[in-house]
Amino acid sequence: MPHIALPDLPGIRGPMAFRPETAKPLNDLVDVLLRGPSSLTPGERELIATFVSARNDCRYCQTIHGAIAAHHLGGNEDLVLDVKQDPQSAAISYKLKALLVIAGKTAESGKLVTADDVARARQFGATDLEIHDTVLIAAVFCLCNRYVDGLATWAPDDPAFYRQRAALVAENGYAASTLTGPAT
Amino acid sequence: MPHIALPDLPGIRGPMAFRPETAKPLNDLVDVLLRGPSSLTPGERELIATFVSARNDCRYCQTIHGAIAAHHLGGNEDLVLDVKQDPQSAAISYKLKALLVIAGKTAESGKLVTADDVARARQFGATDLEIHDTVLIAAVFCLCNRYVDGLATWAPDDPAFYRQRAALVAENGYAASTLTGPAT
Repeated sequence: MPHIALPDLPGIRGPMAFRPETAKPLNDLVDVLLRGPSSLTPGERELIATFVSARNDCRYCQTIHGAIAAHHLGGNEDLVLDVKQDPQSAAISYKLKALLVIAGKTAESGKLVTADDVARARQFGATDLEIHDTVLIAAVFCLCNRYVDGLATWAPDDPAFYRQRAALVAENGYAASTLTGPAT
Repeated sequence: MPHIALPDLPGIRGPMAFRPETAKPLNDLVDVLLRGPSSLTPGERELIATFVSARNDCRYCQTIHGAIAAHHLGGNEDLVLDVKQDPQSAAISYKLKALLVIAGKTAESGKLVTADDVARARQFGATDLEIHDTVLIAAVFCLCNRYVDGLATWAPDDPAFYRQRAALVAENGYAASTLTGPAT
């Protein structure tokens, strides 16, 4: 049961419906970062979000963003699982592997990211903007994971819920989907 | 030296000037949360931000938000230092002490916040909205701290810089101050 009286919506959607004044800029931030113009694909960016949320052990975030990643990646749920479990042996580019190292360290503490980590990402073609966005995606999901778990929100068990919701978000974006779609 | 080529501004302002598309919603979020209508004073909310940033050992964030907190608290820099070092013995309300327990746990992992922590805050008069905002402030500063340190931004040494900047932000807000004021 959530720590405070929230609208009965799963995960981050409960506190977002409770506090629309903060939900709006947070959704705007996530929309720009995960869906705005970028040389990283939406699938790659959702994989970074999913990986960080898995590292932070946030069930709702890793499951919904994993489903959105899979949706963008042609339904490849196995690849999402591989990235969560062992990104360095997953079937993703060397650039994304290097970015996930930066994301994983940022999630633990920004101070852990080294010049060598950044040089390695550059070696595989990462741009400054891609490195920036990787750090910020990791940081934003450290926010979301703590928001979701710090208020003890609930998360559905049924994978079908996440697939359905993922299709809606992938189609319409985060801000537009906040108060729409099935609650469970 | 920052890990990527950023405009030469201290702390979060370098990456914000580098990526204004994400800076805007992030500043909007912080403005609503720290300066919007609330039964927590701006000083109390800045103390929560400062405390979390100190726990995360982010020099820029804890110093600038500590200076903004002190500005709101009539220049009481000693109180800010007390809250950073040992909030439970600082000269603040029992409600704020209980909220800082929730903030400190959220900063480590949202899962650490217990029903007892929340009940204790309520016992001292905290509302659901205040508890929500405390969790979200802590989560937002987990973002900001990682953004600032994950890109290896620089921070000025001179306390006068932070006092001057604090007065500007306290007067005008975060979004309005992003690209203004002295760089060092």
